[in-house]
Amino acid sequence: MSQLRIRDFGIDIGTLSTGRRNAITDVEGVRVGHCTLSEGSTQTGVTAILPHEGNIFKEKLIASNHIINGFGKTIGTVQMNELGTLETPILLTNTLGIGTASEALIEYMLERNPEIGRSTGSVNPVVGECNDMILNDIRNLSIEKKHVVQALEDASSEFPEGSVGAGRGMVCYSLKGGVGSSSRLVELRHGTYTIGVLVLTNFGRMGDLLVNGRPVGEQLSQHVKASYEADKGSVMVVVATDLPVSDRQLNRIIKRSVTGLSRTGSLITTGSGDVVIGFSTAAKIPYKADTPLLSFQTIHETDIDEAFRAVSEATEEAVLNSLITADSVTGREGNEAQALRSLLEKYPVSLL
Amino acid sequence: MSQLRIRDFGIDIGTLSTGRRNAITDVEGVRVGHCTLSEGSTQTGVTAILPHEGNIFKEKLIASNHIINGFGKTIGTVQMNELGTLETPILLTNTLGIGTASEALIEYMLERNPEIGRSTGSVNPVVGECNDMILNDIRNLSIEKKHVVQALEDASSEFPEGSVGAGRGMVCYSLKGGVGSSSRLVELRHGTYTIGVLVLTNFGRMGDLLVNGRPVGEQLSQHVKASYEADKGSVMVVVATDLPVSDRQLNRIIKRSVTGLSRTGSLITTGSGDVVIGFSTAAKIPYKADTPLLSFQTIHETDIDEAFRAVSEATEEAVLNSLITADSVTGREGNEAQALRSLLEKYPVSLL
Amino acid sequence: MSQLRIRDFGIDIGTLSTGRRNAITDVEGVRVGHCTLSEGSTQTGVTAILPHEGNIFKEKLIASNHIINGFGKTIGTVQMNELGTLETPILLTNTLGIGTASEALIEYMLERNPEIGRSTGSVNPVVGECNDMILNDIRNLSIEKKHVVQALEDASSEFPEGSVGAGRGMVCYSLKGGVGSSSRLVELRHGTYTIGVLVLTNFGRMGDLLVNGRPVGEQLSQHVKASYEADKGSVMVVVATDLPVSDRQLNRIIKRSVTGLSRTGSLITTGSGDVVIGFSTAAKIPYKADTPLLSFQTIHETDIDEAFRAVSEATEEAVLNSLITADSVTGREGNEAQALRSLLEKYPVSLL
Amino acid sequence: MSQLRIRDFGIDIGTLSTGRRNAITDVEGVRVGHCTLSEGSTQTGVTAILPHEGNIFKEKLIASNHIINGFGKTIGTVQMNELGTLETPILLTNTLGIGTASEALIEYMLERNPEIGRSTGSVNPVVGECNDMILNDIRNLSIEKKHVVQALEDASSEFPEGSVGAGRGMVCYSLKGGVGSSSRLVELRHGTYTIGVLVLTNFGRMGDLLVNGRPVGEQLSQHVKASYEADKGSVMVVVATDLPVSDRQLNRIIKRSVTGLSRTGSLITTGSGDVVIGFSTAAKIPYKADTPLLSFQTIHETDIDEAFRAVSEATEEAVLNSLITADSVTGREGNEAQALRSLLEKYPVSLL
Repeated sequence: MSQLRIRDFGIDIGTLSTGRRNAITDVEGVRVGHCTLSEGSTQTGVTAILPHEGNIFKEKLIASNHIINGFGKTIGTVQMNELGTLETPILLTNTLGIGTASEALIEYMLERNPEIGRSTGSVNPVVGECNDMILNDIRNLSIEKKHVVQALEDASSEFPEGSVGAGRGMVCYSLKGGVGSSSRLVELRHGTYTIGVLVLTNFGRMGDLLVNGRPVGEQLSQHVKASYEADKGSVMVVVATDLPVSDRQLNRIIKRSVTGLSRTGSLITTGSGDVVIGFSTAAKIPYKADTPLLSFQTIHETDIDEAFRAVSEATEEAVLNSLITADSVTGREGNEAQALRSLLEKYPVSLL
Repeated sequence: MSQLRIRDFGIDIGTLSTGRRNAITDVEGVRVGHCTLSEGSTQTGVTAILPHEGNIFKEKLIASNHIINGFGKTIGTVQMNELGTLETPILLTNTLGIGTASEALIEYMLERNPEIGRSTGSVNPVVGECNDMILNDIRNLSIEKKHVVQALEDASSEFPEGSVGAGRGMVCYSLKGGVGSSSRLVELRHGTYTIGVLVLTNFGRMGDLLVNGRPVGEQLSQHVKASYEADKGSVMVVVATDLPVSDRQLNRIIKRSVTGLSRTGSLITTGSGDVVIGFSTAAKIPYKADTPLLSFQTIHETDIDEAFRAVSEATEEAVLNSLITADSVTGREGNEAQALRSLLEKYPVSLL
Repeated sequence: MSQLRIRDFGIDIGTLSTGRRNAITDVEGVRVGHCTLSEGSTQTGVTAILPHEGNIFKEKLIASNHIINGFGKTIGTVQMNELGTLETPILLTNTLGIGTASEALIEYMLERNPEIGRSTGSVNPVVGECNDMILNDIRNLSIEKKHVVQALEDASSEFPEGSVGAGRGMVCYSLKGGVGSSSRLVELRHGTYTIGVLVLTNFGRMGDLLVNGRPVGEQLSQHVKASYEADKGSVMVVVATDLPVSDRQLNRIIKRSVTGLSRTGSLITTGSGDVVIGFSTAAKIPYKADTPLLSFQTIHETDIDEAFRAVSEATEEAVLNSLITADSVTGREGNEAQALRSLLEKYPVSLL
Repeated sequence: MSQLRIRDFGIDIGTLSTGRRNAITDVEGVRVGHCTLSEGSTQTGVTAILPHEGNIFKEKLIASNHIINGFGKTIGTVQMNELGTLETPILLTNTLGIGTASEALIEYMLERNPEIGRSTGSVNPVVGECNDMILNDIRNLSIEKKHVVQALEDASSEFPEGSVGAGRGMVCYSLKGGVGSSSRLVELRHGTYTIGVLVLTNFGRMGDLLVNGRPVGEQLSQHVKASYEADKGSVMVVVATDLPVSDRQLNRIIKRSVTGLSRTGSLITTGSGDVVIGFSTAAKIPYKADTPLLSFQTIHETDIDEAFRAVSEATEEAVLNSLITADSVTGREGNEAQALRSLLEKYPVSLL
């Protein structure tokens, strides 16, 4: 990725090592794709996370979700809670695009799985959202099914961050937000594992932004009047790992993303749908019961703290990456969200 | 309603009085509409429940949901849990129709509420589903947006039950299931209130069916070979009331629907998405904070048992109504679900 | 056991086979002990369930709990939810005895585990309760630590039911309730497993009692005036199994006990603390991480319905066993709870 | 209070004003009492929070709890979740003292409420705990019932912080932790309300400690070798407010304490029982239903963000107060936890 990221500005979050790309795609097999719509008051898009390279419906992954704050419309959480599995790619889009995105994802799954509705039952699409109404005219329902397909087909282990895909119209800490990612290595007695995080950031007021503990937002707001103080945002956090865990352990791990969010200044405001979805690629669960019993390996609970630290650090850094990689965007009614990068160049405010 | 219902066969469930229509629409202002698709292997539809006659987005209702078993795709539960309110009509449809139905419901709300995406935020569509794949070809995605609109426009306080609307393709206890309803009066020291239930039934094996405690299913299965033993079904339960309750109290009340389901023979099998959604019309919550504080009245917790009894009885009776009012339907690949009524006429099995 | 049980009266619940003893102790290694206090207005006791014969603190079991209705004081649920394990025996006693019982259980565990508070951390006592205030003077706090020890030391695979142990003062369906048990065999492709249930019954009004679907309570109440109509009761359900399951699967299984409770007539009234605690003996989780990773086997989700049926049937039968084995008890202020058995002898009411 | 607190060191957390005492007792009617045991390897105690000055059993308060991490033994959460009320004082003590503390609290309630076990049912004691085993010999079970009574009787609106009461043996960020408190004023259109927080801190590694964003722990650990790196701790957070809220709203508010904890450096490690309990004094719920319906006022959801900010800031500051007010303590086997204050005097590390 050629974008400058928060580490390029001298900010190192935490103490653990990052993966090679410092991105969610450091977890083997995970790919991310975007479809970006950018024209006038249509500033929105779709981001797709593909959890592994096989057929996810036939080889499901252990998965879990955690609702930090539920002012949101995320689809697919009910079944994920009950069965502890993920059976589709994960889509992120704007808040009123969830219906269309679900429909497109269902069609995508039907095409690849002739068994659905015949020898097996239904399929559970997973779609998260944030509300990009400041920059994007959500009332024009611009997300079409073809955009979902484009995001899915764009999926790659290398992907851009910032004002792209579902992140195109997002506003975070009164700045331009969007997509950000980061990863951490978890060194245990029995091996090295990876935890990767991707965030879609659309929350917070400028004055609250902390960069590695420093009140950068407060300093910025002495120079810039943030136009969009009201916090009607959200954040979607997707956590991938190759750590062998049960769905209960995975749930404990992904819950810790809130510590990373908090350290960037989040107060988890009411209007914010803050949702975390996680999956582990360590085991694949066959959709049919071919063997008598399933065999799993999991870490012992005493090993889990390193994973907690990893998800905390990666989430904090992913939020900062979403801000620092974003380009300024002007959208609906001329509303503009300025890039953190531009403001730092313009005003005597330092990240360090 | 001219259909014969379970009381017409001499079966009185429980001890409480029913409302005038013995239906969910006994709760003042509640209306139900259907759109039924019935042609060849398209045997499906949409059922809409309109909670009150005003603008539900601007005058939200206290609401709650309870996941009895989460093998389902119901949309809108996350925000309802967080905020304790309902802000759209409730739609029921087939499992793969949820994306389209959500999209249609969003459009319906946008049309009626120009503030959405401008001066207020997003809107949270609520759509429940069951999997009607035995009779209906779910892969052909036959639910279109216009069908949702038709169901919404069909809404009335009088409505048919059985093989109609979302119930068209449903199979329950290996018999033809579908839509059923019932209501109960709750007499408290301070007034008489109504609890109404509407169910969409799509669960259970014939041998398990109990009618008011009698093993009718077991007896029937000595005469009929049920073709669809595998239980991949679901049940959606919608509970309406005019009882003044907090969202916590409402949640307690709607949870008791499981006692009614159980008494019809349900084991809440794994493949079944069993979801309850409830709302109270006793208070309307303005979407904007016009007054300093909101004022509510609620029952004292010691009064709640009568509501528990009411929801239990009404749920049990609604399931039986869905079975006894249903007509036989032949659908995908010639699969047929026989009406309980027909079987009772044919075989020496009595309900009493 | 020499007590007559519900099967001895010709009542066969459900279709699955029972284990050899038709009791929770059919699960290999599980033992049950009682300490019964019966003198004047002290009609109470302690019942202990020992999950396996080894050191449960050092070899923990996968466990889960489910709150059907939370008007209760059960201790130990928080940690069980978080870690998915059980590390002590399970105690049942009267509602105000939970403090003393916890203290006694902590002492019992400290004695057997010198590591607690030294090389390992704390220990999580699990104590459930029902309120036996009709027959027992709960204000005199008659449960002492020695009674807990007696119940633990009394543990055996053969144990009496009815008005014993924690069941001594319980009232169920306005009749004498108490301890009941039952079990079912689960036949899967890969083996035969056992699910055992023990209940402590203290809920319900006479008029609501159903025996295998028959309104026995309604019939009885035409002859007997139930003195204690107000339903301030509770039910504790303990589920043991040797089925290899994850804590999530176990949670799904134990939740189905509500279907069995419902079929005996329960409305899960507000004043009732209805709590289910379950454990699986299929795997033992070492308290220290000696191996790199833990290995587990679990059933495939498609095999779980038989377990749902088993827990439903065993719960229903366990409740009936608690009623039919109970002896009449007279306690506080001369209050009397009559045995179902006595009433059946006295009045022309049949179970069949 | 004559102790120096974090503000006396020039550290101002956040932007909101504090209450007069900057303590949980700024909420009218709330009182706090301690009983401290300090002799040799007995370094422990009890802290009691009395929610209002009347009879809390007869005038219950709306209450809620939130389990951030459930590796803990807190008692009373089940019923609080179900009924949304608090009916006893809240006790905090060491992890193995919960049984005794519950018993003592039950006796305390029985004395003051002759109706319990007679005309009303049971009582739900609320007791939280942290594991102080580094400094205190938890195996000697030194908490006796009289200590609970002493803490309850000591209750006052002025109370010391640091190494007192339940905080006596606690270790936080490898430093001496204990009891800390803080408060914030919430200015809404319709009035000024108070949110007060009391914490019992027993978590974290020295290297992770942040003071208002600054890595003070990392700097300290260059000078001091922290002896107790393993994080087996916990944190109890008690939130009081006079804001008129429903139990659902209160739950949303108290959940935000995690943002304050996170900003002090917490990773919510596995061995930590992190539990929040909150109550509102705005309404009193009579134990008997004397009036037909209960009347409540609540804030509109759009007003809630200020409360989120308040609880976040007060929690962060309360943790820092617990550290800065604590005195060094030497306990079991000569283990010593050093006071932050002492280390700051000794080493060239600044809080600013």
